[in-house]
Amino acid sequence: MTTIHLRNLDIVTLDEQGTIHRQADLVVADGFITHLGQAPDTLQADEIIDASGRVALPGLVNAHCHSPMTLLRGWAEDMYFPEWLPKVWRAENQLTGPDIYWGAALAACEMIRTGTIAFNDMYFFMDRVAEVVSESGMKAALTWGFFDPGDGTAVGPALEQTIEWIKATHARGNSRIKTYLGPHSPYTCSQTTLERVVEIAHELGQGIHLHLSESQEQVDQSLKRYGLRPVQHLNSIGVFEVPGGCIAAHTIYIDGQDIEILAKKGVCVPHCPITYMKLAMPFFSFKANLQAGVKMCLGTDGPASNADMDMFAVIRQTALTQKLLQVDPTMMPADTVLRLATQAGAKALGFTDSGVLKVGAPADLILVNLDAPHLRPVHNLIANLVHSAKGSDVTDVMVDGQWLMRNRELKTLDEDRILYEVETRAKALVERVKQ
Amino acid sequence: MTTIHLRNLDIVTLDEQGTIHRQADLVVADGFITHLGQAPDTLQADEIIDASGRVALPGLVNAHCHSPMTLLRGWAEDMYFPEWLPKVWRAENQLTGPDIYWGAALAACEMIRTGTIAFNDMYFFMDRVAEVVSESGMKAALTWGFFDPGDGTAVGPALEQTIEWIKATHARGNSRIKTYLGPHSPYTCSQTTLERVVEIAHELGQGIHLHLSESQEQVDQSLKRYGLRPVQHLNSIGVFEVPGGCIAAHTIYIDGQDIEILAKKGVCVPHCPITYMKLAMPFFSFKANLQAGVKMCLGTDGPASNADMDMFAVIRQTALTQKLLQVDPTMMPADTVLRLATQAGAKALGFTDSGVLKVGAPADLILVNLDAPHLRPVHNLIANLVHSAKGSDVTDVMVDGQWLMRNRELKTLDEDRILYEVETRAKALVERVKQ
Repeated sequence: MTTIHLRNLDIVTLDEQGTIHRQADLVVADGFITHLGQAPDTLQADEIIDASGRVALPGLVNAHCHSPMTLLRGWAEDMYFPEWLPKVWRAENQLTGPDIYWGAALAACEMIRTGTIAFNDMYFFMDRVAEVVSESGMKAALTWGFFDPGDGTAVGPALEQTIEWIKATHARGNSRIKTYLGPHSPYTCSQTTLERVVEIAHELGQGIHLHLSESQEQVDQSLKRYGLRPVQHLNSIGVFEVPGGCIAAHTIYIDGQDIEILAKKGVCVPHCPITYMKLAMPFFSFKANLQAGVKMCLGTDGPASNADMDMFAVIRQTALTQKLLQVDPTMMPADTVLRLATQAGAKALGFTDSGVLKVGAPADLILVNLDAPHLRPVHNLIANLVHSAKGSDVTDVMVDGQWLMRNRELKTLDEDRILYEVETRAKALVERVKQ
Repeated sequence: MTTIHLRNLDIVTLDEQGTIHRQADLVVADGFITHLGQAPDTLQADEIIDASGRVALPGLVNAHCHSPMTLLRGWAEDMYFPEWLPKVWRAENQLTGPDIYWGAALAACEMIRTGTIAFNDMYFFMDRVAEVVSESGMKAALTWGFFDPGDGTAVGPALEQTIEWIKATHARGNSRIKTYLGPHSPYTCSQTTLERVVEIAHELGQGIHLHLSESQEQVDQSLKRYGLRPVQHLNSIGVFEVPGGCIAAHTIYIDGQDIEILAKKGVCVPHCPITYMKLAMPFFSFKANLQAGVKMCLGTDGPASNADMDMFAVIRQTALTQKLLQVDPTMMPADTVLRLATQAGAKALGFTDSGVLKVGAPADLILVNLDAPHLRPVHNLIANLVHSAKGSDVTDVMVDGQWLMRNRELKTLDEDRILYEVETRAKALVERVKQ
C-alpha cells in the first residue's frame, strides 16, 4: 500500500458544508483519501510532499467533448454554422484510426495540464481513444457516435459493432473507463433507430449520450415530424429511462415543460458556453434549469468550436455568461460553478464518489499554485479560483492516487512525441482534404 | 548600441498587409527593430537567441485599468452594483500611498507575465504608480482621478495639485510615461469642473481620460440635468477637442448620434467586456461603433470587477461576446481583435509607433510559446493566439529593446517581495476596514 502525505496545503473540499482547510495535511493511501485536515503523528508515508503555496481541490470533469477534434483546432474560424459544419465534416471524413489516437492524446495532455481528471467523449474509432485513456491514467466515459436517419445515409458503425465494442471494452475491466450508447441526436437518428438503442441500453445496462435541442431549427423540425419538441419526443420513446441514465448535451432550446421532463427524469445536461458564444447561439441561460433541479454540468465541447479543452476557461465563462444573460451579477456564484465543474460532472459520468475531497473518496485531485501575482491577495479563495485562476496554474494532477502530472511535468504521456505526431498528421490531413 | 538577434521564430507583424514571417529573424538595435524576415549575414549581435517554437507579436496594450485595485481582487463578489460600489469605496478610503505602490507593482508583475507592455491607468497617488512604471520598464498613460460634483463633496486632489503632478512628471522626462487629466466622469463632476479641466488641458497640451455613459441611469440623469445625453454634453463643452485627445472608457449606453460624435471627434473608447459581464451590464455590442469609425481599444478595467489583468483573456472575451451579442459568428474575426489589443490601444495612449512589428518601430514585443498542446496544430496561427492562447503562454516581454521578462523570469521587478508586501497589506486593509 503506497501512502502519499501532502503537507502545508490549503484544501477546498467542496463538501456539503463547503469546508476549506488552511495549511493542512492530505493523505492518500492506495488510491483513496485517508486523512484530511491533520495527519496522525504516527503516519509513515512513502512520499512526503511539502505543498506550501498550493491549494488542493477536486479534479475537474469535462462532461462533454470530442477530444480527437484537437486536430481541427483553428480549422474553421469566424464563419456561419451552415458553412462551418460541412467544412468540419470534410476533414472528419479523412481522419484515420491513428489520427484519432494522436488527437485524443493531445487532448489528454491539454486536459491534464489544465486540471481535468475525467472526460465524457463522443467521437468515432473510440477503441483508439480508450487506449489513450488507459495509458494516460485519466477517467472517461466513451461514446462511439453514429448517425442513422433511417434513409440509408447512416454514418458510423452499425449498432451491432457498437455493442461488440462496448462488450470488449467492459471485458478489459478498466474501472476508469465507462461506455455509453451514442445516437448522435434525434435529428440525425430516426425514431426506429432511437427505439432500438433504448432496447439495447436495457439489454446491456447502458446509458445513452447524445446531442439535444441545439437550435430552433431542430425544435421546428421535430414538431413537424413528430408533433413533439425534441425533449418530449425522446421522453416518449424512453431515452431518459435507460439503466445508465441519459446525458443530453447542450439542450438549450427548451421550454418550461421540457425543463420539467429533464428534471423529473434525472437527465444530465452538459453545458458548453464557449461553443455557444463562438458559434453565436444566444439563448443559454440555465437559471430555470437549476431552479427546477435539472442536473447541469459543464463541458468544453470539441476544439473546432471552442478552441481549447481548458475547464478553468469554461468555469469562468459559465459564471460570466450566466450573470450577463440573466442581467444579474448574483447569478452563478463562484462556489456553485465550481461544483458544476467537479461533482456534478463526476456524477453525470458515473464516477459517483469523485468530485469531492473527503476521507474514503478516490484521490482524484489537483493542486493549484497560489504563488502567482494574479491569484493574490487571497480575500476570497473560491472567487480567485473561478475568476482569476487559469488552467496553467495547475501544477499537479492525481487520479486514483496516481500522479498524472507533478510540478507541471506529465508523468504518463510522452508530450514531445504527441506534439510531433499531431503536427505531422494535421499537415497530412490538410493535403488529403485538398485532393 | 546593443544589438539583439532573435532567430528561427515566427513573427505576426500586424502590419497593414497582415504579414506573417515563418522561421525568421528579428533584430533589435538600441531599442528599435532594425531587421525583420532575414538578417544580413554580416550582422554582429551582442545577444543571439534561438527562439524556435516561439512567435513574436506586438506587445499588448491595456487601454483602461485601475492597477492598484489588485489589492481588492475578490473583495466584493457576486453582488449587485449598488452594494458592490460602496463596499469597494469603503476599502479604497483606507488605501495609503505605499498600498498603491505595492498594488500597482503586483499589477505590473501580472501584466508583464501576460504580455502587456503598456497600460492606461486611472487611480490616486499616481506618483507612486509612476514609480512602478519607471522601475518596471513598462509604458503607461497615467491619470490622477478626481470627483468634483461642485457641491463641496469633492474627492481626490484639487485640480491645482493635479497640474503640479503633471508638470513634475513631465520634468522627470521619462518618455515611457504620459499623463492625462482625470475628471472621473460627467456624473461625478460638475459642468464647471469639466469646463475648467478643458481649459487646463489646452494650457498644458494635455488629454483627458474619463468614464462615460456606463448605465441607462447615467444617461437619464444627464438628460434631466442638461437636456443632453452624456456624450452630447461632453461634446458641448469641448472635452473631445483637447490637445492630447480624449479617452472615454466604456461608453456603452449610446445612440446613433453619440456614435457619430465619438467617430467625428476621434474619441478613443476602451472596451472592458469582462467587467460588463461580471457586473451584468448587457448592452455592449460595438459593431455600430466600428462601422462608424470610432477608435475602439480594449482594457481589463480594475481587478475588483474583472479579477485579473490578463489582456489575452480580454482578447478572447471580446471575440466571443461580440459574436454572441450580435448573434453572428463572423463578428470580430481574430485579426481584428488582435489589432484592437495592440496598435489601437497604443495609438489611444499616445505611443503611436508601437503596436506593429516593422523596421524602425520601437521594440515593444512579446514572445509566445507555441510548443504547448493547446496551441497545436497550427492551422490558423492568428485564431490560435486569440482563441487558444493564455497569458501564461507569454515567455518573453521586451519594451524599447529592454527585456522585462526572459523565459518567464521577471527581469525588472522583485516578484517575491511584491507578493509578500501585497498579502501583508491586504490583511492589514481588512482589519482597518473592519474598525
